Amino acid sequence: MKILDEKRAPNPRRVRVYLAEKAITVPYEPVDIMTGAAKTEAFTALNPVQRVPVLILDDGTAISETMAICRYFEALHPEPSLFGRTPLEIARIEMWNRRAEFNFLWPVAHVFRHLHPAMAELEKPQIAAWAEANKPRVAEIIGVFDNALAGTRYLAGDAFTVADITAMIATDFMKPARLSIPDEAANFKRWYDEVRARPSCNA
Amino acid sequence: MKILDEKRAPNPRRVRVYLAEKAITVPYEPVDIMTGAAKTEAFTALNPVQRVPVLILDDGTAISETMAICRYFEALHPEPSLFGRTPLEIARIEMWNRRAEFNFLWPVAHVFRHLHPAMAELEKPQIAAWAEANKPRVAEIIGVFDNALAGTRYLAGDAFTVADITAMIATDFMKPARLSIPDEAANFKRWYDEVRARPSCNA
Repeated sequence: MKILDEKRAPNPRRVRVYLAEKAITVPYEPVDIMTGAAKTEAFTALNPVQRVPVLILDDGTAISETMAICRYFEALHPEPSLFGRTPLEIARIEMWNRRAEFNFLWPVAHVFRHLHPAMAELEKPQIAAWAEANKPRVAEIIGVFDNALAGTRYLAGDAFTVADITAMIATDFMKPARLSIPDEAANFKRWYDEVRARPSCNA
Repeated sequence: MKILDEKRAPNPRRVRVYLAEKAITVPYEPVDIMTGAAKTEAFTALNPVQRVPVLILDDGTAISETMAICRYFEALHPEPSLFGRTPLEIARIEMWNRRAEFNFLWPVAHVFRHLHPAMAELEKPQIAAWAEANKPRVAEIIGVFDNALAGTRYLAGDAFTVADITAMIATDFMKPARLSIPDEAANFKRWYDEVRARPSCNA
């Protein structure tokens, strides 16, 4: 078993942090997406949408998509639970994880991919107006998270979950996207400092 | 219990089709998103990201995000399984469902939202160049699905799953987005005709 990985990209890092939280060790094999290593015929046979991470099982089965890989390990090793146990926990964590993905990580990624000169080769065409349209969305979702975190320790409640992993990595990704946390988001900053201090974040 | 719903939007329809497949009956309450009914203070208190669908439980708990709502019911009523049972089934279905969302439904939605005159009020700013950039991505993912469907009856294998629901609804959504299925995608068309004939599709 191994995971095709890229140290600089946010999605592979979500898997690494998840596995560190679960204390699961899987060997990583680097794929240099910046030089087109995810576009080769051999890679495309493993993942036709040409993205990392990809989990390769011992029989050669390839599982891609960050959350699919995490859910594979969650089903094999349910404890500590990062996706919830009861129907309501499962739903609440999925809800916050999706908000963290669709309303936070993705807008930050659009800002980065459509403005940063380093992405000119990978994101064609780069559309600066689309990046600009996403900037206020990032500020807006941080406001939503800040409100929620006035009442809870973590995004989905009292327990650390995959939703916190996604939102922490989206927050870190704001730096290369040249975005900053609004000063008034005090609850969000308190949450970020706490989550960012977990040993798993260095995975 | 009730679900805040919008008949014309693709995400609420994913929940309706899912529940029809599970033979679960929940009352629907319409929300007219086109006139801003999802932007009111009362609605925002239920879902701070201002989207339908929203599941309201009897104690007032609000669960939003399409897949969070489906997973809530899947945990309560595991059979027939639409998210998989074994770790590998769970991972494979999540992988294909995410491909159907991120690489298919979303690009189609971007084409629709950024080109269609009816969306001028809801999608500000509309960026035609971003819509155009997404058109080839739709054709590309249909090619990926067509290849996969050469070897399997449904997207994630031999069983109908949530991945088929997402991809079927993305395909239907191509019509208002003024996109069409490439002629050469014969396996995809065979799959679409079969899935589209299920009674749940009219939910």
